[in-house]
Amino acid sequence: MKEEEKLSPWQNKLHEIIYEADTPMGKLFDIILFILIIFSIILIMLESVKSIDVKYHRVLLVLEWVITIFFTIEYIVRIICIKKPSKYIFSFYGIIDFLSTIPLYISYIFAGSQVLLAVRAFRLLRVFRILKLVQFLGEASQLKSALKASRAKITVFLFAVLIVSVMMGTLMYIVEGDEAGFTSIPTSIYWTIVTLTTVGYGDIAPITPSGQFIATIIMLLGYGIIAVPTGIVTAEFGRQTRDKTGNLSAGNYIHVNTQACPSCTKEGHRDDATHCYNCGSVLNE
Amino acid sequence: MKEEEKLSPWQNKLHEIIYEADTPMGKLFDIILFILIIFSIILIMLESVKSIDVKYHRVLLVLEWVITIFFTIEYIVRIICIKKPSKYIFSFYGIIDFLSTIPLYISYIFAGSQVLLAVRAFRLLRVFRILKLVQFLGEASQLKSALKASRAKITVFLFAVLIVSVMMGTLMYIVEGDEAGFTSIPTSIYWTIVTLTTVGYGDIAPITPSGQFIATIIMLLGYGIIAVPTGIVTAEFGRQTRDKTGNLSAGNYIHVNTQACPSCTKEGHRDDATHCYNCGSVLNE
Amino acid sequence: MKEEEKLSPWQNKLHEIIYEADTPMGKLFDIILFILIIFSIILIMLESVKSIDVKYHRVLLVLEWVITIFFTIEYIVRIICIKKPSKYIFSFYGIIDFLSTIPLYISYIFAGSQVLLAVRAFRLLRVFRILKLVQFLGEASQLKSALKASRAKITVFLFAVLIVSVMMGTLMYIVEGDEAGFTSIPTSIYWTIVTLTTVGYGDIAPITPSGQFIATIIMLLGYGIIAVPTGIVTAEFGRQTRDKTGNLSAGNYIHVNTQACPSCTKEGHRDDATHCYNCGSVLNE
Amino acid sequence: MKEEEKLSPWQNKLHEIIYEADTPMGKLFDIILFILIIFSIILIMLESVKSIDVKYHRVLLVLEWVITIFFTIEYIVRIICIKKPSKYIFSFYGIIDFLSTIPLYISYIFAGSQVLLAVRAFRLLRVFRILKLVQFLGEASQLKSALKASRAKITVFLFAVLIVSVMMGTLMYIVEGDEAGFTSIPTSIYWTIVTLTTVGYGDIAPITPSGQFIATIIMLLGYGIIAVPTGIVTAEFGRQTRDKTGNLSAGNYIHVNTQACPSCTKEGHRDDATHCYNCGSVLNE
Repeated sequence: MKEEEKLSPWQNKLHEIIYEADTPMGKLFDIILFILIIFSIILIMLESVKSIDVKYHRVLLVLEWVITIFFTIEYIVRIICIKKPSKYIFSFYGIIDFLSTIPLYISYIFAGSQVLLAVRAFRLLRVFRILKLVQFLGEASQLKSALKASRAKITVFLFAVLIVSVMMGTLMYIVEGDEAGFTSIPTSIYWTIVTLTTVGYGDIAPITPSGQFIATIIMLLGYGIIAVPTGIVTAEFGRQTRDKTGNLSAGNYIHVNTQACPSCTKEGHRDDATHCYNCGSVLNE
Repeated sequence: MKEEEKLSPWQNKLHEIIYEADTPMGKLFDIILFILIIFSIILIMLESVKSIDVKYHRVLLVLEWVITIFFTIEYIVRIICIKKPSKYIFSFYGIIDFLSTIPLYISYIFAGSQVLLAVRAFRLLRVFRILKLVQFLGEASQLKSALKASRAKITVFLFAVLIVSVMMGTLMYIVEGDEAGFTSIPTSIYWTIVTLTTVGYGDIAPITPSGQFIATIIMLLGYGIIAVPTGIVTAEFGRQTRDKTGNLSAGNYIHVNTQACPSCTKEGHRDDATHCYNCGSVLNE
Repeated sequence: MKEEEKLSPWQNKLHEIIYEADTPMGKLFDIILFILIIFSIILIMLESVKSIDVKYHRVLLVLEWVITIFFTIEYIVRIICIKKPSKYIFSFYGIIDFLSTIPLYISYIFAGSQVLLAVRAFRLLRVFRILKLVQFLGEASQLKSALKASRAKITVFLFAVLIVSVMMGTLMYIVEGDEAGFTSIPTSIYWTIVTLTTVGYGDIAPITPSGQFIATIIMLLGYGIIAVPTGIVTAEFGRQTRDKTGNLSAGNYIHVNTQACPSCTKEGHRDDATHCYNCGSVLNE
Repeated sequence: MKEEEKLSPWQNKLHEIIYEADTPMGKLFDIILFILIIFSIILIMLESVKSIDVKYHRVLLVLEWVITIFFTIEYIVRIICIKKPSKYIFSFYGIIDFLSTIPLYISYIFAGSQVLLAVRAFRLLRVFRILKLVQFLGEASQLKSALKASRAKITVFLFAVLIVSVMMGTLMYIVEGDEAGFTSIPTSIYWTIVTLTTVGYGDIAPITPSGQFIATIIMLLGYGIIAVPTGIVTAEFGRQTRDKTGNLSAGNYIHVNTQACPSCTKEGHRDDATHCYNCGSVLNE
């Protein structure tokens, strides 16, 4: 690539190992990195479990430092072996890598900041890039583009849901009052969203008949309007799938392209045509 | 527009500022209005939180009055600068605007009526009009027309759900009885809808084996029939998307036109046909 | 209709009023009947609410008798004014009508049997027939045929869900044990279905880490496989919608029917063809 | 089949009875086996209910032994009457059959291992094979292939859900703390999945305003992204349905064939064309 033009040979070598996965060394590095990422996330989880942390605090801290130092080295090497370090540093992965490394260092300044290490979960995303899962990447990008195409509709939908929640939440606050747990409008709105999304914790639940009646309406509404985002995304997927498979039921219909005949400028030839279906002239490849 | 024909110049000016968003002044007014609407809703929420209301009651009341007076002025100006005030007053937005303003005034007559201020949430809808989000409006209208087209099916579906709920609710009332919380048929119906919509608060839950068995059936039913509104709306969306993109995958199929053969008047030729597929006569261009 | 051939004139008259809704009298009867059905259901609900029943027991009982006597008369008249009473008696509506009437009578023999009056909820279905809501009936039959076409797939799906529930329920029974509420395998299966259908009461919830881990898998499974019934029904709806709207994007494609040419037996003529597109013979209407 | 070539006549006979269902004996065996499987599962359930187990322990144990001995004999016979026993033993059904039989025997060595008998639930799958429900099998395989085709997308989706859960779970752990039940990161992740999948037990629920706010976002996220697996599977089903029904709505579009014009060898004529659409020559039948 152009970026590597001015890199010295050892930088090129490192770049190949760290950024690419075509050489045996590159593959090995990527696999080790991925295992370490998983390991570091498990480590953070274990630290948060009191009974485990009390028993093995020392071991966990040492392991945490080992991981952090490895990630620090990796971060520095990544900066060194690239032509434009700023491109990496301010990229999505660059920022994640930085946030995955720094908390332990600053935890000596700001106590408790090591909980931010959970940002490391995002490093898992690297697995897609690392393993060069072309197929999965394709699928992911299809998911992404379907969600992207539906974005405007989903925004409108979410806005409508929020307005309904604010209205219904206030109504429930008026109807139910404090005894049932509807202590304020924000709490009531929280409850409305809990109900509308069919989560239904039950920590707050209506107790008056009128409150239960309104709750019923909210539930049916939530049960019904879940069809809306589903409909949006499904229609989008359907369209994409159709576009991808081309002519729906291959073989039954002729697939025509927009190639123009050099003689008669007729368009709509079959993909495999060598002669114009109209004037018989030879078509350009 | 015609409505403004008889308006005096300053009325025209105001109309432009308040109702439209094409001039810098109009845009500024709309942005300020939108911020005030958001602000007024946050204000109402804060008032409902006891701990905040106790501390800052005076400040909140003053701010509430400031907002209300601004909204009152806005409401009056809107009436003044339009040719047919009744058109605005009885429009959807006109009624919302009125209901957003009046509660504070009448709260001195009917104590507690200021909770109705929550109607202001609906003023948020104005954002769509204000920001002239043509794209979003298009999406919203597509959502609306998809829901409209599915209305009859959804009504039938909701009616079926209600009948099932009444039946199953009564059954659970008979089976479970008071101990488990099924104290009356309406309460049991409420519980059935909570279960059928997969909300599941858990404030009421069956405790007898037969009750749990019926509950299981209701859950599976609810889990299965959620497919129905989703199917309805999705099919509708799919249809709309197809209509919009034209003929599915334009260019993949042979398009036939309504050109008539000059000899046999046959129609339905390929767009590019030069001879009649039926009688072999040369077709007119 | 044939059935009425041997009915005497007054039977014909009654038949017209009770079974049909084309005459003013018939319409009036149907509307009164519908109001009484709604009223009778509300009555049963009120009776079940203790606080109301204690206060107004006498009034409710009298009203219940009035309704029951009306329904009894209606039931008898329906039998009288039809040629083949057995056709009505053993029809769906006939059975519902019978079950809606009898419980109050036998409540003097079997105490508490009047709760069965809730069967009356099914009489609401009559509204579809009564109001001759052709449009709604069409929608309902479309819903029904979509569900019918998906029946086999949904059966397979439900069977798979049940097997998963039995397996996972047993697993949770082994892992969690009595303290968390998993007191027996049937209870655990009940909990699994509560979780799998995303209802989640919370009356039983895992407390051990391994139990919570398995619960997580069940939830994700339930969250994912809800796509299956939805996908089945949606695909079915999509197919039906396509069939109904005919040629997808009307005007772009030729709609051909299966009418055969009387001369050359060619099929596939356009719906409005008067002559065979192949041999030119006049087509039968 | 080839496998049976070297089997002695009585082996062939047994094979026919046990593995096939075409003869009256084979059908009878299959029906008895299926009833026994259902019966054995009910037996295990009853054993787990303490109140029943205490009362009827002896009876249940005897019945359990009867079933187990029958299954053991069946297992042995299945091995005997097949040419390559290893093919059966290591097949899916072979392993299930083994695991359904062995636990009771080893329960005298490892106490409590008889709970593993629940594996028998999987034997229910045999019903599909036994009853030769071709239609249902077809549906099942369609479900399976739809899920298979969506596998990559669903994997990407689940991976995204897990990453979101880890992130959000950690965030809630930091925000809420111990009082609300968020005692460790794994517990918080468990809660996040409970919320994201809209199960919502309510055993753990946020109590701080900021925690409730984040919970709201997780709920809306979960409510929205359920559209993704649904969209994936639905699009897949839609595609399959289309493929199956052939050309969308058979008969509505002009079907073009690959017949070549005898003069110009042009292909892609309507099925019923008598003349070449291109050169006007008469086409061969």
